[in-house]
Amino acid sequence: MDYNELALTLHKQYKGKITTTLRDTSDLDRTKLSAYYSPGVGAVSQAIATDPSQLPTYTWTNNLVAVISDGSAILGLGDLGPRAAMPVMEGKALLFKHFANIDSVPIVLDVHTPDEIVATVKAMAPSFGAINLEDIAAPKCFEIEERLKTECDIPVFHDDQHGTAVVTLAGLINATKVVGKQLSSCKVVLIGAGAAGTAIAKLLRQYGIGTLYAVDSRGIISNDRTDLNAEKTALMDYLDTNVSGTLDDAITGADIFIGVSKPGLLTPEMIAKMNADPIVFALANPTPEIMPDLAKQAGVAVMATGRSDFPNQVNNAIAFPGIFRGALDNGIKKITDEHKLATAIAIAGLVAEPTADEVIPAVFDERLVPTIAAVIV
Amino acid sequence: MDYNELALTLHKQYKGKITTTLRDTSDLDRTKLSAYYSPGVGAVSQAIATDPSQLPTYTWTNNLVAVISDGSAILGLGDLGPRAAMPVMEGKALLFKHFANIDSVPIVLDVHTPDEIVATVKAMAPSFGAINLEDIAAPKCFEIEERLKTECDIPVFHDDQHGTAVVTLAGLINATKVVGKQLSSCKVVLIGAGAAGTAIAKLLRQYGIGTLYAVDSRGIISNDRTDLNAEKTALMDYLDTNVSGTLDDAITGADIFIGVSKPGLLTPEMIAKMNADPIVFALANPTPEIMPDLAKQAGVAVMATGRSDFPNQVNNAIAFPGIFRGALDNGIKKITDEHKLATAIAIAGLVAEPTADEVIPAVFDERLVPTIAAVIV
Repeated sequence: MDYNELALTLHKQYKGKITTTLRDTSDLDRTKLSAYYSPGVGAVSQAIATDPSQLPTYTWTNNLVAVISDGSAILGLGDLGPRAAMPVMEGKALLFKHFANIDSVPIVLDVHTPDEIVATVKAMAPSFGAINLEDIAAPKCFEIEERLKTECDIPVFHDDQHGTAVVTLAGLINATKVVGKQLSSCKVVLIGAGAAGTAIAKLLRQYGIGTLYAVDSRGIISNDRTDLNAEKTALMDYLDTNVSGTLDDAITGADIFIGVSKPGLLTPEMIAKMNADPIVFALANPTPEIMPDLAKQAGVAVMATGRSDFPNQVNNAIAFPGIFRGALDNGIKKITDEHKLATAIAIAGLVAEPTADEVIPAVFDERLVPTIAAVIV
Repeated sequence: MDYNELALTLHKQYKGKITTTLRDTSDLDRTKLSAYYSPGVGAVSQAIATDPSQLPTYTWTNNLVAVISDGSAILGLGDLGPRAAMPVMEGKALLFKHFANIDSVPIVLDVHTPDEIVATVKAMAPSFGAINLEDIAAPKCFEIEERLKTECDIPVFHDDQHGTAVVTLAGLINATKVVGKQLSSCKVVLIGAGAAGTAIAKLLRQYGIGTLYAVDSRGIISNDRTDLNAEKTALMDYLDTNVSGTLDDAITGADIFIGVSKPGLLTPEMIAKMNADPIVFALANPTPEIMPDLAKQAGVAVMATGRSDFPNQVNNAIAFPGIFRGALDNGIKKITDEHKLATAIAIAGLVAEPTADEVIPAVFDERLVPTIAAVIV
């Protein structure tokens, strides 16, 4: 299937993906217009001016998520700017509606420094019930999310970080079950120091993990390295960094490999050096670090990718619809680390008897949204 | 009818007024999701990155207006802040959809200086097809609109100024016809130096008018006044300011009174001093400068108000849906003074034979949107 051609055709045919409609579908006569707009709406304004906490009682913010990007890290395509980000953000709005019946507005920003992005998002935050940051490059995405979480009184969630991390953890919880290991004593090797890699490292640490090494083209990211950029330095907070060495050193005896990097980085020879029943989450999109058939031949026990055409897809859409559904419905002001851990455990729990081919529920599993929403409390 | 009570009830019942839905209402299977989102959507992003003018070809921006306010001048209620502005902006979004089938997103801003508002709106401008500024206080609204028109490549229109001005001019064109006068030789007295008053003065000047005086509580706004605030100083550009005097001096021999000020400012005694067949546009909301029955008793020949329960309602919703429909459909980058004049003339032309009770078409007239859109070229 040539998704590119289909995408161009469908987007042109429908002139985009979302539209606004009216909640009250009855005939809007003069009386109703005078209640929905001037003069009647003035009473609603005054009610909110008197008690700003009533904003979601009277306006669509109760069910509204802004999907916000500056276009600096669009999918795997890099920095293509705000206009090129719009179809992706509008696509995310489509997913919000389709999976969780959440109203969503794509907002792309033509400013790019953390200060400018924080100021702009903070300025418009009263317009929304929650904010989903999307496709903002690392490492600035970390600072932007942290500052906005502190400065806004609505949930702010950078899905590229946490969505991927939550689903990865859910999958690893079940994958270790399949091979009879404890995640808390596993040795994990991570390649990829972007938004997702950093969030995965952080969440694994919080859940409890044995040893976690990250590796780049020059070897293990360790204390004695002097060549680390800001992204990798940020990642170190969550790594074991007292051991230096090569990728070979790291992968030897590892239980789990996680890649959020580039196609082809993992070879059968490297898998052969891992512990028995190796687990491989090769999440590079659209082409994973190793293709599933090759990995299986090399002895991988449980394999996950980012793709829908193989088992065990690590798809953010498994997590974020339920997380935001819960945040909006339960009046949550901040999505915490505890919420992310609870979400991962809840997702893992939906697979009653994990097998190598099913450690992660399908994105179409209708239990996902209500099950996740119930733990965002 | 208690519009306030009905407004509170309806807003609570429907939890707001607008919602998002999907343009493609067919079943979204895995294939379609892969075209509307990753990986297929990447091709759309790349098409737009290559040619940013394709943004409206592939995204909902082709039919999308942002309704933006900082809440500094909400209806007649004053500065109640961004949250209290939300129901009004969402109401405007409802009007956009109802009258012109335009998708619209309400955005309220928690920043208030012209620099901050301009920076914020400019930063998010690539998200929209056009921008409707709303309920921003004078005089800062003038600077904000002018700067955004210069700095954004999409139409920016402050409806409180121009919508009111366009419909007022349309009504005056027909009202002068009814009494057999030429607008170009009429003496006009204006009370109200806010956003609407200033825009009315400017548009009347551009159309061509005899004499235009504005009056405040201290008399005619004239060159020898030393007590004028920034709003009134801005207004002077469009006035005759070489004559000083009292309201009595101004109203004596006037053909037209226009009020965008406060209830009760116009008295029967003042009307008695006007020229034969006086025209009164008493546009203060919800209570006009003089009530229609009292004005008629005092000899007013043609009367307009801002209210739907009297003939000749000066309602912005007569103009803005068609103006934005035309701007979006015709690829207009700026809404010019010529567009506003053409819109007023087009609206006036929809009343084939103006009478005292019909100088302005009803807001529900279905010819309005297509007729106006056709002159926004």
